[in-house]
Amino acid sequence: MTTIKVTVWNEYRHEKTNPQVAEIYPEGIHGAIAGHLRTAGELDVSTATLDEPEHGLTDEVLDRTDVLIWWGHLAHGDVRDDIADKVRERVLQGMGLIVLHSGHGSKVFERLLGTRTGALKWRDDGERERLWVIEHGHPIVDGLGDYIDIPKEEMYGERFEIPAPDELVLISWFEGGEVFRSGCCYRRGKGKLFYFRPGHETFPVYHHPQVLQVIHNAVKWAAPTRGATVSYGRIASGSLNGGQ
Amino acid sequence: MTTIKVTVWNEYRHEKTNPQVAEIYPEGIHGAIAGHLRTAGELDVSTATLDEPEHGLTDEVLDRTDVLIWWGHLAHGDVRDDIADKVRERVLQGMGLIVLHSGHGSKVFERLLGTRTGALKWRDDGERERLWVIEHGHPIVDGLGDYIDIPKEEMYGERFEIPAPDELVLISWFEGGEVFRSGCCYRRGKGKLFYFRPGHETFPVYHHPQVLQVIHNAVKWAAPTRGATVSYGRIASGSLNGGQ
Amino acid sequence: MTTIKVTVWNEYRHEKTNPQVAEIYPEGIHGAIAGHLRTAGELDVSTATLDEPEHGLTDEVLDRTDVLIWWGHLAHGDVRDDIADKVRERVLQGMGLIVLHSGHGSKVFERLLGTRTGALKWRDDGERERLWVIEHGHPIVDGLGDYIDIPKEEMYGERFEIPAPDELVLISWFEGGEVFRSGCCYRRGKGKLFYFRPGHETFPVYHHPQVLQVIHNAVKWAAPTRGATVSYGRIASGSLNGGQ
Amino acid sequence: MTTIKVTVWNEYRHEKTNPQVAEIYPEGIHGAIAGHLRTAGELDVSTATLDEPEHGLTDEVLDRTDVLIWWGHLAHGDVRDDIADKVRERVLQGMGLIVLHSGHGSKVFERLLGTRTGALKWRDDGERERLWVIEHGHPIVDGLGDYIDIPKEEMYGERFEIPAPDELVLISWFEGGEVFRSGCCYRRGKGKLFYFRPGHETFPVYHHPQVLQVIHNAVKWAAPTRGATVSYGRIASGSLNGGQ
Repeated sequence: MTTIKVTVWNEYRHEKTNPQVAEIYPEGIHGAIAGHLRTAGELDVSTATLDEPEHGLTDEVLDRTDVLIWWGHLAHGDVRDDIADKVRERVLQGMGLIVLHSGHGSKVFERLLGTRTGALKWRDDGERERLWVIEHGHPIVDGLGDYIDIPKEEMYGERFEIPAPDELVLISWFEGGEVFRSGCCYRRGKGKLFYFRPGHETFPVYHHPQVLQVIHNAVKWAAPTRGATVSYGRIASGSLNGGQ
Repeated sequence: MTTIKVTVWNEYRHEKTNPQVAEIYPEGIHGAIAGHLRTAGELDVSTATLDEPEHGLTDEVLDRTDVLIWWGHLAHGDVRDDIADKVRERVLQGMGLIVLHSGHGSKVFERLLGTRTGALKWRDDGERERLWVIEHGHPIVDGLGDYIDIPKEEMYGERFEIPAPDELVLISWFEGGEVFRSGCCYRRGKGKLFYFRPGHETFPVYHHPQVLQVIHNAVKWAAPTRGATVSYGRIASGSLNGGQ
Repeated sequence: MTTIKVTVWNEYRHEKTNPQVAEIYPEGIHGAIAGHLRTAGELDVSTATLDEPEHGLTDEVLDRTDVLIWWGHLAHGDVRDDIADKVRERVLQGMGLIVLHSGHGSKVFERLLGTRTGALKWRDDGERERLWVIEHGHPIVDGLGDYIDIPKEEMYGERFEIPAPDELVLISWFEGGEVFRSGCCYRRGKGKLFYFRPGHETFPVYHHPQVLQVIHNAVKWAAPTRGATVSYGRIASGSLNGGQ
Repeated sequence: MTTIKVTVWNEYRHEKTNPQVAEIYPEGIHGAIAGHLRTAGELDVSTATLDEPEHGLTDEVLDRTDVLIWWGHLAHGDVRDDIADKVRERVLQGMGLIVLHSGHGSKVFERLLGTRTGALKWRDDGERERLWVIEHGHPIVDGLGDYIDIPKEEMYGERFEIPAPDELVLISWFEGGEVFRSGCCYRRGKGKLFYFRPGHETFPVYHHPQVLQVIHNAVKWAAPTRGATVSYGRIASGSLNGGQ
């Protein structure tokens, strides 16, 4: 098995302006996630952030990215259109994409799914979340039990405007009375997408062992497969006898 | 629009032996549901129960059934195999089927879906349930708001061993900490199935206006469509020029 | 049943410049389709074309459109971004959309589905197409037999870069050796989309009775349902006891 | 990566009575498939056949089977009900299952999917089949091009009475005018199923390199994953604070 090359992208603004967030994530949300993935072996992990040139997502960076992890919130509007489009294109060509938490409202996620993915209910009162396993044979939940328990989280509630997931792997229960489709798999073009809900910046969610485990599992799931080589465009008739 | 012919089938055992159930449903669960559907106009509603000859599901009855509603619990094992198979066959030929609550463990449901549909978590402590709308454009939720609120219900929790629904329309939240896929649409053969979770016999769930409304909506959704007329078996080559 | 308001949108360029197309569709492709739908009763049918102000798709027009039919080919790039976005928004709010043939490459379709929907194989040699019914209980194939036979058509072949359809209703066979997912249903936001493949401008495909019948069926399928009224945004905790 | 244990099951009747089949498959269809898989490394391959005691599918055999491959045709009715049920149960518990060609009519396949999976069109005139890749990012098509070309095959045509696949990976084109969903993935319980169409006994289909490659790919795809450990049955309330 070849090493999977992961780039963890973070907006990285909250950490610079909110001391509470900085305390939880002294090296940024990207740093926390990347730090964990590095311990996992088998992965080659880099990071990139919004305020780097080209948001840290140059062609060179994307060329060595098998799976991109995306966290954004405040500054979805600051992401350049051309870079959002480039990321979308890469996913359709086979790059894996893991969108975390408030990344649901990002240009990248919305352009890949087509619906107004920013639309949902929310409340950031720090309430208990339980993510229940729906498809227990799925590799993304490898090693879990019946559920993941998170003591304090921002709530997201349905109706969430996404296309019905190709595979719905986790559903969240919230203390205050809501539910949410929290682990959603999509196949788009040659690539795979996973949306994973947990991760509000003011709670130490990316230090939770099982949340990190799901992200690690998702990286392995989303990594490109060789697949088939297909072509597009005009093709001649009578190619029937030609095999491939 | 032609009148839809509905048959409400009930095991009808709890009501005869448990005074609490008898008080809530003096005419049986089937009577409560059928009574409501009759007020809805447009429907021609009958009932059938387990202890009638052939469980009340003779060929004549099924011939005049567009949509069958199924409630069972204690006595799944008393349903004759040949009758369960006959109902399955009818669904595959186009009859609509609405399976309610503990009907998830019935022979009919299990044989149509193929998995061990009896497998789930449960607790009958009478806790609050909220059914959240996931697909708000679906006709089965016509007239609802964000959710249905049921003050006291039996809990069903995931993992529920069903095939991923073709359309997941409602997800339940339970006071005690669980979630459940509570409104599940399937297309099987030429027929449509809807699984709808609410309905424990010791709570007046089938007197709840919105629960009854969803059942009414589901009857209209599950009613057979004309569709296409397809054939099976050996067909000749060269039929290409023949049109249909 | 209330009357469904249909707007048939056509690029309407081929008909003005190619005498062969003008002869087949003297009143335009939109005129042929609208003409048929008007004979069907129950429908209130208008047309709109690219070169009208705002492409004929003003707010007033869209306000009285339940289902929009879209045919485009040469001039996808001439459709204004803001109008494509407005149409997308309307679909997500509940308007039905039927995308025909080369409309697969339109801004509207691509933005709603998120993938590069222009990518497929093609050959316009006028070969036989057979559209096989896959889901014979679906209302979109009401009244058909095993298949629709079209003597001369442009070929479209897989791989077609679309998200897996929520319901795959028709698959095409082509004389030259290809297959295609030709009848694809999607639920997006509160709206429904149907992609229907037939319709090259140089063949009289929109005079074919069964092709017109499928379009008519699709209009009825895609028409908005009342559905549920859901809300988005911040919601208070403790709203649990309030019902709706 | 641990070695995957594969059992190739074959009815093994045609080979004993039809010299034409015996010539193509001197060691049986199971022998041809097992022979190829053994060369692939990484796999531990056994075979089992209908006329062995318990059809060769004792508990001991199934205990050391990660993925079961199934070929049957003439003698579906000779498979014992209890053994078909046992295999179904194993799949729901996580064993992978690959059903080949005429195995579509087997008890095992029908009981796992719930529909009358024997229903389809067919013609055994030895015509050309082309299997087109629909999901080119799927591991089951690893290493293919646009399609697989088989010069002589039995035709299977739609309408095929299966539930809509969770993932539709391949669609066949047939010389005589038909199409077929030929590569169908299902997740059922904790297990994965793959239906793969090619394989009529009177043609050397299981000597075709790409057909064998897809079977090999499918073995790797269908192999059990650890997944999550879930529980069923009554659970106590207030377990909310207990983690897992």
